[in-house]
Amino acid sequence: MSPFRVDLNADVGESFGTYVLGQDPALMPSITSANVACGFHAGDPSVMRETVGLAARHGVAVGAHPGFPDLSGFGRRPMTLSAREVEDIVAYQVGALAGIAAACGLRLQHVKAHGALYNMAASDRQLADAIARALVAVDRSLVMVGLSGSALIAAGRDAGLATASEVFADRAYRADGTLVPRHLPGAVLGEEATVTARAVRMVRERAVTAEDGAIVALDVDTICVHGDTPGAAALARGVRAALEQAGVVVKAMR
Amino acid sequence: MSPFRVDLNADVGESFGTYVLGQDPALMPSITSANVACGFHAGDPSVMRETVGLAARHGVAVGAHPGFPDLSGFGRRPMTLSAREVEDIVAYQVGALAGIAAACGLRLQHVKAHGALYNMAASDRQLADAIARALVAVDRSLVMVGLSGSALIAAGRDAGLATASEVFADRAYRADGTLVPRHLPGAVLGEEATVTARAVRMVRERAVTAEDGAIVALDVDTICVHGDTPGAAALARGVRAALEQAGVVVKAMR
Amino acid sequence: MSPFRVDLNADVGESFGTYVLGQDPALMPSITSANVACGFHAGDPSVMRETVGLAARHGVAVGAHPGFPDLSGFGRRPMTLSAREVEDIVAYQVGALAGIAAACGLRLQHVKAHGALYNMAASDRQLADAIARALVAVDRSLVMVGLSGSALIAAGRDAGLATASEVFADRAYRADGTLVPRHLPGAVLGEEATVTARAVRMVRERAVTAEDGAIVALDVDTICVHGDTPGAAALARGVRAALEQAGVVVKAMR
Amino acid sequence: MSPFRVDLNADVGESFGTYVLGQDPALMPSITSANVACGFHAGDPSVMRETVGLAARHGVAVGAHPGFPDLSGFGRRPMTLSAREVEDIVAYQVGALAGIAAACGLRLQHVKAHGALYNMAASDRQLADAIARALVAVDRSLVMVGLSGSALIAAGRDAGLATASEVFADRAYRADGTLVPRHLPGAVLGEEATVTARAVRMVRERAVTAEDGAIVALDVDTICVHGDTPGAAALARGVRAALEQAGVVVKAMR
Repeated sequence: MSPFRVDLNADVGESFGTYVLGQDPALMPSITSANVACGFHAGDPSVMRETVGLAARHGVAVGAHPGFPDLSGFGRRPMTLSAREVEDIVAYQVGALAGIAAACGLRLQHVKAHGALYNMAASDRQLADAIARALVAVDRSLVMVGLSGSALIAAGRDAGLATASEVFADRAYRADGTLVPRHLPGAVLGEEATVTARAVRMVRERAVTAEDGAIVALDVDTICVHGDTPGAAALARGVRAALEQAGVVVKAMR
Repeated sequence: MSPFRVDLNADVGESFGTYVLGQDPALMPSITSANVACGFHAGDPSVMRETVGLAARHGVAVGAHPGFPDLSGFGRRPMTLSAREVEDIVAYQVGALAGIAAACGLRLQHVKAHGALYNMAASDRQLADAIARALVAVDRSLVMVGLSGSALIAAGRDAGLATASEVFADRAYRADGTLVPRHLPGAVLGEEATVTARAVRMVRERAVTAEDGAIVALDVDTICVHGDTPGAAALARGVRAALEQAGVVVKAMR
Repeated sequence: MSPFRVDLNADVGESFGTYVLGQDPALMPSITSANVACGFHAGDPSVMRETVGLAARHGVAVGAHPGFPDLSGFGRRPMTLSAREVEDIVAYQVGALAGIAAACGLRLQHVKAHGALYNMAASDRQLADAIARALVAVDRSLVMVGLSGSALIAAGRDAGLATASEVFADRAYRADGTLVPRHLPGAVLGEEATVTARAVRMVRERAVTAEDGAIVALDVDTICVHGDTPGAAALARGVRAALEQAGVVVKAMR
Repeated sequence: MSPFRVDLNADVGESFGTYVLGQDPALMPSITSANVACGFHAGDPSVMRETVGLAARHGVAVGAHPGFPDLSGFGRRPMTLSAREVEDIVAYQVGALAGIAAACGLRLQHVKAHGALYNMAASDRQLADAIARALVAVDRSLVMVGLSGSALIAAGRDAGLATASEVFADRAYRADGTLVPRHLPGAVLGEEATVTARAVRMVRERAVTAEDGAIVALDVDTICVHGDTPGAAALARGVRAALEQAGVVVKAMR
């Protein structure tokens, strides 16, 4: 049996009302965990139900993807909420998706914060703790997903939650283990061969080469696959195939 | 032991952000079931958490009070949603409150639709069935609350749910068992003696006198107490005292 | 000089935040009036500004396309608002777009209600009057666009506004001049030859053949061209070319 | 004739749907300029219309009070919007209120940003410039209101706008002319005698004593009067009376 194992996750269910976003049906066959938007930054109750149903049909584990209450900014704009407000909006969104999932006969596997909330909580321990408290409160069996090495993982562990350390095969890293911000040149890697090679190396060697050439050690439980670019579904397929060819078992995080 | 028993319910948690509505703290000692707004027509995650905590401290059972997505109209404006959309928004809102309640160590007891959704589903069996399906899907132990004799009760029963037939001691009835619409003169009764006498009679005789003098038979599991008028808390206290003095056990519906 | 003249209008600016809808850039060269969504059922301030700028660059006249406050339902779900509420939401949305348009050096030409608001006001004179009052209040030089022969046109005229009677070349008509509802078979005509021939006949003969073969007389100031289907831009080009070839001057309504 | 003159402004129209906030009718007789919320952080089209009508009946000049799109946070939570987004949301909100005001036969006098947007733009010149651009674009006769000595005033002047420097008689100042943040002890002064004395001194001496005893020079065109505390209306009356008794002409800013 292979000693290497990883989960592939993607953000899905980001359509809203009449607005269609992403390519969920094409992505589902390649992933093992789906982060479903919960209606604050994207998604609505009917989109959520359809997305959970789609995941169920593909045997993909379902998790909540809570974000800031900012539909017009897609949850990508930093907002200053108190820790208490963050705890409450996360509990609300996780509960809402759990209700929808129950209607499909599913339990939630994990929670991964979205966009600005994810980024801010990766380095702000108070926000990370607020998110962890919400998970403990709603269902302590939920896996808390966060950037490898970040405050999110530390907060989850200290709260007694199972955690999943996330890495990004298509993003450039800095020597300190943080991601190069999206708006900088070279932040996003597009070439399939590069991305798949990085994914395999991340899993097998628990490391990535930073932009300055430094070797960064990583915890790697799950790899994020993006779904919002034209070639996204093909890239996800390529990453999964490369991982399996390299002897890695691709399996839901729990 | 008294053969008479009834629940007293009220709509609570209707504040939003900086906006305060109702007088929940004054009302809680008099009621046995709290219908908590879920963020669509009123309420927000932090208000929901505070409201559930308040109910817990008073030993009041907690239920969801889902409404149309219409904050500016407080969920009182009829909207034309498909049965599927109604099922989804109810599952979402019930799940969201269940998540918040879990954070307070509570399980939900019941679901009562709000405003225009309640009124429309009282006479529209397709909407009532959609609500019942949402309850079955999320948690089949939830009690479905609806107007006594309405499609809501029929839908709940046919779906295998426990139901609670609701009556209004401060509202005028028509001979067919429906309420006189709010905007008509005489629709709302304000005098405490009248309201408390009606409440006692409703529970002990399972009947109410309609505006034309007809006697209307009622199923009476729960009496709705309003919280949004100046004297509301005092009236609720009066109704509860009158019921207990008449030998009625006032107790949560389950 | 040709005695025949008509305006071609389309609904544009229906994107929202990160969500893209329609094909405005491809549509603009074919139309003479743009109905810009105003943020209630679709559109946001930045989308509005970009859309007005795009229209300006194509010499297309700009109008407001106000709808119900229902982003998740795209303004297509009937809602029960009071006449006063309708007047206020229309004044608000028209003013908002006028502000954005002023920033681009433009004045608004017209107002056309959207979706359920348009359909309801076409047959509900009180709603139509409320819309007309909003136009008079904000700017009495605005042209009120409405379904040919509907309450919208009558209300606009009685309020002293210029009106533009709208027809739909790609929709089936009933003998009473109303449209066959979208969900019925045959309601939407897709074949380009059919649609262009109807458009030309509508303008030259002021008539359309209803589904039962009856000839329906029409006032025809503007033809609505849809932008939300894959072949929409091509169809709009075809309609315009056919009109011009038939000697019709295609020109903004004012 | 008195050489001293000042405007008294207050934030009004902050109710929303069924939610009532503030005490506008009691406040109106004491103020000369009303900052009307525009639907993003508070207010809705019907509340705006009622508020403008109320101001008109009291002869109070009307201005827009645009805020972040954050109803649940009342626009008090910092959000990271681009300068372009800020320009667009300000143009939208100013236009919307101008439309509503036109319906009441009024033109807008001024624009004062709300809450977090005001505070952030007071020290962030890029945001202040974005607001100024929106005013120039929509109507260059609008007066730009901002904290005395702040980037808002500089931006307004550089954009060629009339400006009004605002001071707060009931807030503690720092030696650098900024306000002591609300959450710090002593930030808000409540005693009427203190507040009225400060108001008079601010206007007559163009100065205020900071918390450390330093004398801070101020430009003083308008004094902000708060309307959201129990004694607010009485305090406003007191401030106005004290000013007039001290020979100050209290008059709208333009």
